Amino acid sequence: MYFVTAMVSSLVLSMPFFHQPGVKLSFIDTLFTAVSALSVTGLTVVNTAETFNQYGVLVLTIIIQIGGIGLMTLGTFIYVVIGRNIGLSARRLMMIDQNRHQLSGLVRILQFVFICTLLIESVGAVLLTLRLYFAGYVDSFKHAFYYGTFHSISAFTNAGFDIFGNSLYNFQHDYFIQTVIIILLVLGAIGFPVLIETWEYVKRRDRKFRFSLFTKITTTTFIILLLIGTLGVFLLENNNFLADKSWHEKLSYSFFNSVTARNGGFSTMDIAQFTAPTQFLLSTMMVIGASPSSVGGGIRTTTFAIVLLTILAYAKGNTEVRAFHRRIHQDDVMKSFVVFSSAMLLVVSSVICLDAFEAQRHSLNSVIFEVSSAFGTTGLSMGITSNLGTDSKILLIILMFIGRIGLLSVLLFFRREKKAKIRYPEERVIIG
Amino acid sequence: MYFVTAMVSSLVLSMPFFHQPGVKLSFIDTLFTAVSALSVTGLTVVNTAETFNQYGVLVLTIIIQIGGIGLMTLGTFIYVVIGRNIGLSARRLMMIDQNRHQLSGLVRILQFVFICTLLIESVGAVLLTLRLYFAGYVDSFKHAFYYGTFHSISAFTNAGFDIFGNSLYNFQHDYFIQTVIIILLVLGAIGFPVLIETWEYVKRRDRKFRFSLFTKITTTTFIILLLIGTLGVFLLENNNFLADKSWHEKLSYSFFNSVTARNGGFSTMDIAQFTAPTQFLLSTMMVIGASPSSVGGGIRTTTFAIVLLTILAYAKGNTEVRAFHRRIHQDDVMKSFVVFSSAMLLVVSSVICLDAFEAQRHSLNSVIFEVSSAFGTTGLSMGITSNLGTDSKILLIILMFIGRIGLLSVLLFFRREKKAKIRYPEERVIIG
Ligand SMILES: [K+]
Ligand SMILES: [K+]
Repeated sequence: MYFVTAMVSSLVLSMPFFHQPGVKLSFIDTLFTAVSALSVTGLTVVNTAETFNQYGVLVLTIIIQIGGIGLMTLGTFIYVVIGRNIGLSARRLMMIDQNRHQLSGLVRILQFVFICTLLIESVGAVLLTLRLYFAGYVDSFKHAFYYGTFHSISAFTNAGFDIFGNSLYNFQHDYFIQTVIIILLVLGAIGFPVLIETWEYVKRRDRKFRFSLFTKITTTTFIILLLIGTLGVFLLENNNFLADKSWHEKLSYSFFNSVTARNGGFSTMDIAQFTAPTQFLLSTMMVIGASPSSVGGGIRTTTFAIVLLTILAYAKGNTEVRAFHRRIHQDDVMKSFVVFSSAMLLVVSSVICLDAFEAQRHSLNSVIFEVSSAFGTTGLSMGITSNLGTDSKILLIILMFIGRIGLLSVLLFFRREKKAKIRYPEERVIIG
Repeated sequence: MYFVTAMVSSLVLSMPFFHQPGVKLSFIDTLFTAVSALSVTGLTVVNTAETFNQYGVLVLTIIIQIGGIGLMTLGTFIYVVIGRNIGLSARRLMMIDQNRHQLSGLVRILQFVFICTLLIESVGAVLLTLRLYFAGYVDSFKHAFYYGTFHSISAFTNAGFDIFGNSLYNFQHDYFIQTVIIILLVLGAIGFPVLIETWEYVKRRDRKFRFSLFTKITTTTFIILLLIGTLGVFLLENNNFLADKSWHEKLSYSFFNSVTARNGGFSTMDIAQFTAPTQFLLSTMMVIGASPSSVGGGIRTTTFAIVLLTILAYAKGNTEVRAFHRRIHQDDVMKSFVVFSSAMLLVVSSVICLDAFEAQRHSLNSVIFEVSSAFGTTGLSMGITSNLGTDSKILLIILMFIGRIGLLSVLLFFRREKKAKIRYPEERVIIG
């Protein structure tokens, strides 16, 4: 399914009709662009504005939109099926009359996601268009609308594609545009379930409304990570990149980079200008990624939170892992650890491979950064992606793919249905 | 206990009587050397041969020996107490009459470890001394004995300290010495329980003798990691450092570096000459480390193996993790994951800190390498350790300490005894 869409997309994108005059695109570059768009990663091997004409950009927008909405629908569907709203009996019922229920559920969810997405993107597009036009960034209202709409969609789906040619460098002092983009990025990356529950909360005006554990964990982790990222960039760069900047520039660069590393992929500056520890910090942030059931990739905020909580619980000697006065199910703890550790193995081996493919043409910083960016489907880049060899590009395509559909799904793909028949005797071993 | 020994050691080492003429040692450098010796890491901030005179080297040998034997005794003790030889009833019995049993057990174990260690080290010392003397590396038999003994002890305890001044660079073509060192390193790092069981196996000559699950897992993992390391170094360097070398040099450099990265810390060449991916590969090997209940550090081979097995079991849909026709206890799986993930968090944050402390004076490769080397108590270095600032040295001291006593013990240190009283209701969340 995903493969087919990626192939069709890359076929369409390869048609010269959609290119700027004189542009020739290799197969691997088209595939890379298609996967990057469909997985809303935003890593690019070619400059979007210089490669695609207006029709090409339209196709790209559609691919991004399909990718984004597909993810949100799927995520929301998972949330509803295993979510809190459905008690055990209701779930039972659903299993008996599966087809009808699932279908009507899916249709309703699709409707909801569609309307939500359109609404948020429209508001974003209007704000960006007006600002672009009235602040005189573009010469005609038509252009303002073109740029405004594209970047609103690119921001809300966290695709991070830009058609300015240099991401948001032009707006490094335009805090209005930055704010709009940040809000769009966060709304997309925080997870649709969170939006749904917040919407319900507002609608019901009920003091007794209880947010689900999932929403609490993911939102708290999301916010804490944003703060840590901001503080981290600030502390590490205060004597370096930020040294000669004003207080609001310091705040803006720190916060924007923290947000964009979560999953966005836009940038208001050249990340290569940061020092190595900052780049490494941003890499770890990208690997952690966004919320589950969002447009984001990586290991996801909940995974990271549960791993941390389990370590703390273990240190405290608690037999159960807790958060917000709830016990976390042992299966979820195991899942988190499986995701976390397989992610580490994947990232580390990818770094070694990419580093070996590139035969030391690029620094380890930048290799770690691009691998993290692909796995986290973030799309930030230190600028080396377009210079990579074909083998490296294939590796990044695979990483974007895995980061997108999630490691758990990849692992489950290999799962066979047969149950364990022989139960072996147990034996203890010494750990650590 | 450990702290006290470290402090006493560093006090003794700071006495000018043990130094070469004209040497002045700062407090932090003495502490660093003491911790490095006691934790048998082998990272050095000063050149051992140029800093300490013969008496100083003797003190160092004693510290290393205490560190090594302490670890082996402790490790063996843990193995015996929770090991396979003690059935549940026997363990019960021990708990009733705890003092006497544990004491007599400890004395017997200490005896055994002592004799074993002396035996192995003596054989090593004799072989090294003879070779050093007859191959004409040194001018007198006394010197041959001095060097031979020191390096035999340093190898078996995996301390990796050298008093040649340039590790084993002089012996990069002496395969006899390399082989002796490799055997000593492996015997030290493979874990005392493995030696005990092998000894029992040989003694009994019993076809029905069953090796414990621990021994099987740790030995298999150890060997597989050695092979992967050798192959990895070979593949990554075949067109680089190894390009102009003969086949036996290729084999020697690949294998020796794989062994030494497990935990040894000796080197026959300058690691900085390797390419970045090789350095990164060796870093991951050092973080994995040696066997539990050995002189090695890191997350330990069993932890790594169980994490891998669990991921595989999860992918296959097995509810239980198996190895060698045995089930692995759920508690051990959890422990492994806790160790693995806290190690990752520790290493990643240490890299960011060290990188920030050093204000980009050193490349990310080398920072990752030194951090991994300290945490794995390996002691390999890309040569930056002696140029580090005091804050960085303190960080490495802490890492060596944690790597030595193991993350599990560090976490358990914070554990309070009180049991969880309130049992919270459980709620599922979405992972990955
Ligand atoms: K993105
Ligand atoms: K060592």
